Amino acid sequence: MKFVSIIIGSKSDYEVMKECAETFKKFGVPYELIISSAHRSPERTKHYIKEAEEKGAQAFIAAAGMAAHLAGAVAAATTKPVIGVPMASGELRGEDALLSTVMMPAGMPVGTVAIGKAGAVNAAYMAIQILALSDDELRVKLQEDRVSKAKKVELDSKEIEVIL
Amino acid sequence: MKFVSIIIGSKSDYEVMKECAETFKKFGVPYELIISSAHRSPERTKHYIKEAEEKGAQAFIAAAGMAAHLAGAVAAATTKPVIGVPMASGELRGEDALLSTVMMPAGMPVGTVAIGKAGAVNAAYMAIQILALSDDELRVKLQEDRVSKAKKVELDSKEIEVIL
Amino acid sequence: MKFVSIIIGSKSDYEVMKECAETFKKFGVPYELIISSAHRSPERTKHYIKEAEEKGAQAFIAAAGMAAHLAGAVAAATTKPVIGVPMASGELRGEDALLSTVMMPAGMPVGTVAIGKAGAVNAAYMAIQILALSDDELRVKLQEDRVSKAKKVELDSKEIEVIL
Amino acid sequence: MKFVSIIIGSKSDYEVMKECAETFKKFGVPYELIISSAHRSPERTKHYIKEAEEKGAQAFIAAAGMAAHLAGAVAAATTKPVIGVPMASGELRGEDALLSTVMMPAGMPVGTVAIGKAGAVNAAYMAIQILALSDDELRVKLQEDRVSKAKKVELDSKEIEVIL
Amino acid sequence: MKFVSIIIGSKSDYEVMKECAETFKKFGVPYELIISSAHRSPERTKHYIKEAEEKGAQAFIAAAGMAAHLAGAVAAATTKPVIGVPMASGELRGEDALLSTVMMPAGMPVGTVAIGKAGAVNAAYMAIQILALSDDELRVKLQEDRVSKAKKVELDSKEIEVIL
Amino acid sequence: MKFVSIIIGSKSDYEVMKECAETFKKFGVPYELIISSAHRSPERTKHYIKEAEEKGAQAFIAAAGMAAHLAGAVAAATTKPVIGVPMASGELRGEDALLSTVMMPAGMPVGTVAIGKAGAVNAAYMAIQILALSDDELRVKLQEDRVSKAKKVELDSKEIEVIL
Amino acid sequence: MKFVSIIIGSKSDYEVMKECAETFKKFGVPYELIISSAHRSPERTKHYIKEAEEKGAQAFIAAAGMAAHLAGAVAAATTKPVIGVPMASGELRGEDALLSTVMMPAGMPVGTVAIGKAGAVNAAYMAIQILALSDDELRVKLQEDRVSKAKKVELDSKEIEVIL
Amino acid sequence: MKFVSIIIGSKSDYEVMKECAETFKKFGVPYELIISSAHRSPERTKHYIKEAEEKGAQAFIAAAGMAAHLAGAVAAATTKPVIGVPMASGELRGEDALLSTVMMPAGMPVGTVAIGKAGAVNAAYMAIQILALSDDELRVKLQEDRVSKAKKVELDSKEIEVIL
Repeated sequence: MKFVSIIIGSKSDYEVMKECAETFKKFGVPYELIISSAHRSPERTKHYIKEAEEKGAQAFIAAAGMAAHLAGAVAAATTKPVIGVPMASGELRGEDALLSTVMMPAGMPVGTVAIGKAGAVNAAYMAIQILALSDDELRVKLQEDRVSKAKKVELDSKEIEVIL
Repeated sequence: MKFVSIIIGSKSDYEVMKECAETFKKFGVPYELIISSAHRSPERTKHYIKEAEEKGAQAFIAAAGMAAHLAGAVAAATTKPVIGVPMASGELRGEDALLSTVMMPAGMPVGTVAIGKAGAVNAAYMAIQILALSDDELRVKLQEDRVSKAKKVELDSKEIEVIL
Repeated sequence: MKFVSIIIGSKSDYEVMKECAETFKKFGVPYELIISSAHRSPERTKHYIKEAEEKGAQAFIAAAGMAAHLAGAVAAATTKPVIGVPMASGELRGEDALLSTVMMPAGMPVGTVAIGKAGAVNAAYMAIQILALSDDELRVKLQEDRVSKAKKVELDSKEIEVIL
Repeated sequence: MKFVSIIIGSKSDYEVMKECAETFKKFGVPYELIISSAHRSPERTKHYIKEAEEKGAQAFIAAAGMAAHLAGAVAAATTKPVIGVPMASGELRGEDALLSTVMMPAGMPVGTVAIGKAGAVNAAYMAIQILALSDDELRVKLQEDRVSKAKKVELDSKEIEVIL
Repeated sequence: MKFVSIIIGSKSDYEVMKECAETFKKFGVPYELIISSAHRSPERTKHYIKEAEEKGAQAFIAAAGMAAHLAGAVAAATTKPVIGVPMASGELRGEDALLSTVMMPAGMPVGTVAIGKAGAVNAAYMAIQILALSDDELRVKLQEDRVSKAKKVELDSKEIEVIL
Repeated sequence: MKFVSIIIGSKSDYEVMKECAETFKKFGVPYELIISSAHRSPERTKHYIKEAEEKGAQAFIAAAGMAAHLAGAVAAATTKPVIGVPMASGELRGEDALLSTVMMPAGMPVGTVAIGKAGAVNAAYMAIQILALSDDELRVKLQEDRVSKAKKVELDSKEIEVIL
Repeated sequence: MKFVSIIIGSKSDYEVMKECAETFKKFGVPYELIISSAHRSPERTKHYIKEAEEKGAQAFIAAAGMAAHLAGAVAAATTKPVIGVPMASGELRGEDALLSTVMMPAGMPVGTVAIGKAGAVNAAYMAIQILALSDDELRVKLQEDRVSKAKKVELDSKEIEVIL
Repeated sequence: MKFVSIIIGSKSDYEVMKECAETFKKFGVPYELIISSAHRSPERTKHYIKEAEEKGAQAFIAAAGMAAHLAGAVAAATTKPVIGVPMASGELRGEDALLSTVMMPAGMPVGTVAIGKAGAVNAAYMAIQILALSDDELRVKLQEDRVSKAKKVELDSKEIEVIL
């Protein structure tokens, strides 16, 4: 079974990352979600990745804050695509997590998305785009989503627009 | 034919981005590479994306510097996965390009990699990881690459290591 | 009819950008205001710009947050002056939007103003200064505004000043 | 006579800012260019602005580095549009000049362009866009420039592109 | 009469800058305090500085936020020592005001203190240190203040300290 | 008696730094805690360090905000290991304290930990790791703590995890 | 045998980190030095840490650039003190490595030192300070080093000082 | 005898700080200059300050790089005005030194000037402005310097200016 695996570095990141799960639900895409830490539970993280790969994980999403090593640790343990979401925890509001996630050395990519909620949603979107390469139904849903987003802009505009 | 499309925002970015092309060659992955700009040639960019999609592009890599809108413009024109490479051109050495590429709003993901050469290489790696989901030969090559990278670390270490 | 066109990237930016509209009202300058996004509704944005130009738009004001590509996209679609307002949305409080708006490549200018409310007001002022080049009444209003601002400083000072 | 006035804060900024003058020459737009400082020659700056306004200056371009107050000082002395170019002088490479130029308080706009050469060119472009509002010949030149820029992208691409 | 002159760029800065005035009161040092802006009331600023100098101002304190040009404008208009206080107004919390105040070009010094309340207090302290060079009573007060500060540390410590 | 000494630069830092003390209590490690300032009570700081060293201090933890010189001042007064905790006080939220603490010149190390609460806890952990080098009981406690942290991750995960 | 273990993330960091080794030589402190990567050779890193601990490693020094996860990975694999050295590799000159190294979550400390050469030297100093807690000879050497550093300052000063 | 004391944190800062000494020479103002470090020679620093005060030092200039504590340490040891010059040494080019120098806590002011050469010159200017409060000859020289600076701007302008 093809699915996407979400790994969250800490319980406190769940509030933001449940937007990621909600996006998968909206598109009817199966996902797993666990908490595991690059530092506090490195073995669990490694074992989970192997199990998930065997069960059919097509991509991994890793979310962590501060010196956010989780996405890099996942990238080191799999050759599946890894998407990193920098969390805005700590005093630096995610600037630390962004740099810790995106500035990976050559050969170990983490596709990094925006800090916080926009990133949580976009990590799901990117994973869905990857799955859609071999799933026509999903591809159509993504195209419909674009159309509905463009419509939403028009509706939002109607509420406030001033046209001469 | 399945391939990856590389779009470079400006000729001056080629020196760095040819590392991306080299990586595709190393893995025997077909790619296209063109220069097109989000601002100077928006129509060309849009038309190229449609053509590339029809020909079989599985993912897009967009590289630009400064107020780097190219990856976002590509993301707006396709539902295929888009990988953004921030270039270190201009006085701010890529900090501007990084933020302009990674901080995309919800629903329009750009999987962003590191600024400069490491990012150029990693964009290719991430695209290859995506292709490898439906290409077992490529998957094996990625795993072999990991093994050879680990061996390279050992060889590098041998030259300088001090063991008691 | 000569007017200024305001394009807002997202509904959530309206709260801040209505200060821009208020400034046009104060000076009796006609304006249009719509929501349109560089990423979610690129066609709408492009079509609107053409229509607005034909109707007499003299300048465009574009306001967006995060990886703020809107002003750049507008600049690419018109040769009328474009003024960009970076919004402080997202975790980085507008630093991302500032760099995404101001660091435009040669040949595609966006005249960028301050992040947030000060910028919303100043975008209107700059557009009015442009219109005033061919509108003597407006020019006089701008000069009177300067006088009244200087008087306001004196009045504010009176409330707290300590003079020996 | 309608022209644009360029004020440079220091002789060391000329190397970069002559790109601004070159752009005016390319478009056949008359300009003045002087060195004057917000701090070292505030009276000269103020008098020059008044004289230039009387002679027909339609817009001012101010370029300065470090704690770059020049554009703000010009903005305070005229109600004509002011375009600020942050110079990359000093140890902070223009980040200081950018913030000192763009973060103007409400009512005193400076349309700020990119740090360094891209900004020097774009300041001219923005001023030309303003002049073109009442100069059809200039408007046509700007549109032709866009076409030639798009063509240049295609030619650049031809040298390196790889198409399957 | 020897006194210190405080110039505040905007009414909204008064809440913070009254700490500066309080510090002068605590030391019995005469001061003037007015609101005047580098941009909205440049003439008032210049005239006030001349008057204050003639009345006996020994030093100027200038407080402003965002693109904080006030201290630089004061420095350009006097050869008396100028102390700049960056205010944390606007979305960038004073980082802009700090760079706009401290990065002055050679020959036009602004002695810059910390952003916000600590800076408001320290601007007064620095001015008092300057006055104390020719005022022995004040010098003694400054030394006593140091002693009382050291004592305060000990008293604070008593409330929480843990000594084995 | 072997113990760790905590020096806090200001009373306002206690709220955060009591997490440091709590961590020592949890591990049963003796500690001292005082308030002393690099600037307001330099002599007290120096004398305390000497006394603490003579009584058996094995390491010093110094916590301060803004231009945080305390850890450096402690490092200059002892050759015992010094751990610096940057406090998020002031308008810059600890970025200033981080750089002021970590960027020490060669020969005067301060082992710096994260800004704020995570750093307060980690300073204690690092000191305990140092003490554990000659204390087997403590070493075992640290290893048990790792096990319990990994278990905690699993328990946290149970509350929210989604497994296919 | 008590010694310190230095782990370098990449061969290119050796040029800087050999200053660390030189410092150990100067103090006659045994050390090991290997190259191992958190991402390219995670197993090697983990195995080496276990072996080094068994052989007597008292502290670990980890040096890496960009998204520098090495120190954190070492910290997760041992309860010995870990000192992190951020390398200035990549386009961001070490700001990324600093944040990736220092902002560790509670319970997993990395004592971080300055970016680059100063940090390379200080990592050794901090490790020596830790060893000196149970090595009186080393403690004396550290104190002599302080004396010689103070003398060096005086000698340097002699070459240029101007005394009235 | 009234003079100004310059303290440089390290020999490598002399190249930049000799601009400070040159400025004093130009104005005929007596100065002392020594190397002393906040960390490597804290006692020397403290003793020198006391001696200098007794000999007639009216102000102190302290220049240091990285975690630049020197100016703060001087400020803690005297109640004379202290001017801090952040040096651009180390990988962060003076951003660290700027924050370490300027963000002093309430009651301990350091009047901070620009990073590098502009700051070296301005530290001298500010000290001269302080001395000029009780030295009419010096006051006149400062005013003449302003006139000559304004003239220099005009002469510089002549070389390149374009006037219609």
